Amino acid sequence: MTHHLPNSHDLALQARASQVIPNGMWGHMATRSIAAGYPQFFASADGCRVKDVDGNEYIDFMCAWGPNVLGYKHPQVQVAALAQMAAVDSGNGPTEVVVELAETLVSTLDFADWAMFQKNGTDATTACVTMARAGTGKRKVIVAKGAYHGAAAWCSPSLVGVMSDDRVHVITFDWNDIASLDTAVSHAGEDLAAILLTAFRHDVGKDQEEPSVEMLRKARAVCDSTGAMLIIDDVRAGFRLDVRGSWAPYGVKPDLAAFSKAIANGWPLAAVAGNDRAREGASKIFTTGSFWYGAAAMAAGLATVKILRDTDAIAHTRAMGDRLRHGLDGMARAHGFTLRQTGPAQMPMVLFDGDVDLRIANAFTVAALRHGIYLHPKHNMFLCAAHQPEDIDRALEAADLALRDIVAAGVVPT
Amino acid sequence: MTHHLPNSHDLALQARASQVIPNGMWGHMATRSIAAGYPQFFASADGCRVKDVDGNEYIDFMCAWGPNVLGYKHPQVQVAALAQMAAVDSGNGPTEVVVELAETLVSTLDFADWAMFQKNGTDATTACVTMARAGTGKRKVIVAKGAYHGAAAWCSPSLVGVMSDDRVHVITFDWNDIASLDTAVSHAGEDLAAILLTAFRHDVGKDQEEPSVEMLRKARAVCDSTGAMLIIDDVRAGFRLDVRGSWAPYGVKPDLAAFSKAIANGWPLAAVAGNDRAREGASKIFTTGSFWYGAAAMAAGLATVKILRDTDAIAHTRAMGDRLRHGLDGMARAHGFTLRQTGPAQMPMVLFDGDVDLRIANAFTVAALRHGIYLHPKHNMFLCAAHQPEDIDRALEAADLALRDIVAAGVVPT
Repeated sequence: MTHHLPNSHDLALQARASQVIPNGMWGHMATRSIAAGYPQFFASADGCRVKDVDGNEYIDFMCAWGPNVLGYKHPQVQVAALAQMAAVDSGNGPTEVVVELAETLVSTLDFADWAMFQKNGTDATTACVTMARAGTGKRKVIVAKGAYHGAAAWCSPSLVGVMSDDRVHVITFDWNDIASLDTAVSHAGEDLAAILLTAFRHDVGKDQEEPSVEMLRKARAVCDSTGAMLIIDDVRAGFRLDVRGSWAPYGVKPDLAAFSKAIANGWPLAAVAGNDRAREGASKIFTTGSFWYGAAAMAAGLATVKILRDTDAIAHTRAMGDRLRHGLDGMARAHGFTLRQTGPAQMPMVLFDGDVDLRIANAFTVAALRHGIYLHPKHNMFLCAAHQPEDIDRALEAADLALRDIVAAGVVPT
Repeated sequence: MTHHLPNSHDLALQARASQVIPNGMWGHMATRSIAAGYPQFFASADGCRVKDVDGNEYIDFMCAWGPNVLGYKHPQVQVAALAQMAAVDSGNGPTEVVVELAETLVSTLDFADWAMFQKNGTDATTACVTMARAGTGKRKVIVAKGAYHGAAAWCSPSLVGVMSDDRVHVITFDWNDIASLDTAVSHAGEDLAAILLTAFRHDVGKDQEEPSVEMLRKARAVCDSTGAMLIIDDVRAGFRLDVRGSWAPYGVKPDLAAFSKAIANGWPLAAVAGNDRAREGASKIFTTGSFWYGAAAMAAGLATVKILRDTDAIAHTRAMGDRLRHGLDGMARAHGFTLRQTGPAQMPMVLFDGDVDLRIANAFTVAALRHGIYLHPKHNMFLCAAHQPEDIDRALEAADLALRDIVAAGVVPT
């Protein structure tokens, strides 16, 4: 089956959207930011499959850009959330589930003594920074160059509408470069509030990179000696790599962590978890939102975290990622391409070697769409627990056809 | 029926929460910020009634602090949202409903040419300010002293963890004071990006105050002559006072508006709506969130806005608010108290005259809880379309008993 894209209903909706939504769509899901040919609008999602508004179905490797970790509409998660919804979602206060969810995070994460909840990943990363400043009375925050921590003024990848004052206390360093981190720490002087790092390096369009244990230990030691807070931005990776928190395999514990995306398998939820060292700062700040006490998303989160903790969902997802990676690798080679595949198998980054302008990646992923798989040309992708070996094998067949198509169209390795 | 509060299950949950949540609860729904005796945790909500975790039922006048506008779990809204949820909520992109909702806002609001969607009220107010700065290339934002525009660093009511740099371009003036507004405008000089005003003055613990037409016209004229953006923060009042936008009755149109709370009857959604003057700024900024494309909340929003537009829900709610207000007024007088009741009837602020330390308000609202109505001692309250005359009359009987109780307990008018 070959899809013809973009199709009429999607184009009609895009035309309507361009009238009533600036640029036709905002933010990371706007398809104009990637290769032409991507459907903008979707009609349904089930397990590891999505269907666009023209009825084309894809085996999905974006997983809603991270929220889908167990499979779209995982039955246990939906039952739990909808049962809570049938009682109360947003009321005059929280429900019992907020306590159960905080207790479950505390007993599951390897560093946490408490938790609080929000709606956006940006809410959580921003709250962590504010808590660190409140707890330490200091201002400087060290982050890695090019890292994405959200769409707030202090961290947005765009400077449009943002003022220099918004980032005056943010200091950058080069990921995994100890000398660069040292320089940043010196620059912060006596005013260091926090070091904030993503779980691993997952910048758009770049090879992904694990944190070196040396960098994590150095960051931990700096925070221990200065009183600053070590913060993991686990928004994108959290609950996909390790249910204890993404740095658990490295044996380095953060003081504060920001979660969102996968925490409730697609229901809108974010969380900050922290240790007792960070509790004072967390107790002092004012952070809130109209829907932050909503119980349905918390019930979804509780169900999701328990499934991830009590089943082999993460190990299975990693195995599926490995199967995809190995298949793609050999297949690309057979067609004359060399792939650079980096990062955890559950969150693969697939780049074509030498493809500086993404010409090959764009041609390949658009061709892949036509053969029924949804990939991304420059952002890390995501696998979920609903992917089965036969889905991966079917996706690899589609990828093979897509590579054949682009070679036939004259897209050759650089 | 008399409730005994707080009860055992609530207290047990509070004790558990204090271990795993800083301060036991965060933000505006933390009951420690109001009178002792309030239940912190709720079990269910239906129409205009809420039930706490000990099974005590209340006629509710907080409406989840604003989100409940049609009645908790309004059937049409729930059916629409759950049908969308059964297809897809968060996917790889938005669904058709984002276009329908934007089109519906454009055709319903009296000033809007486009819309965008978020999750928190703070997301929407912050996006408006960023859009204004991006569109004008200027930095200063004028706001009324003491107004709440969200929990972000640039506007948070708390300065803990916030730096002076975060607010260096925010200028305040006194609500409805033209001379004060003039001074603020002069202070902004050539650098004015926006004037940002709530729909009406609804500061906590203060008499509410309508905007004077003079102030709104002045703000509009300043924006017209300088190129700045006039922004209405309609997060709290939007879709409760006037479906066209809360300034429609004054004949003054904003360039940008922030909505949240009532827009989807409790489902987590926020929106920015703007005119073509503001479109350029909106097109240039980067603003996004993991769940901002979630279709279920948008389907809830579409159903909610259509009901508010096509029925007498708002007029009915206003009539119920008037009924409550007039009843309370006479009743308080009969017990020797003088009430100061201000603001729109759908969002009443009820203060006891001379009650500077809220001693009377706290005693009254806690006594009212015991008689089965949920009121707030110092925040504006909310009515919804599910309130019926018999609910109001029942609430008035409870208020009468509560006033009798506090007089008997020696709480006397000041």
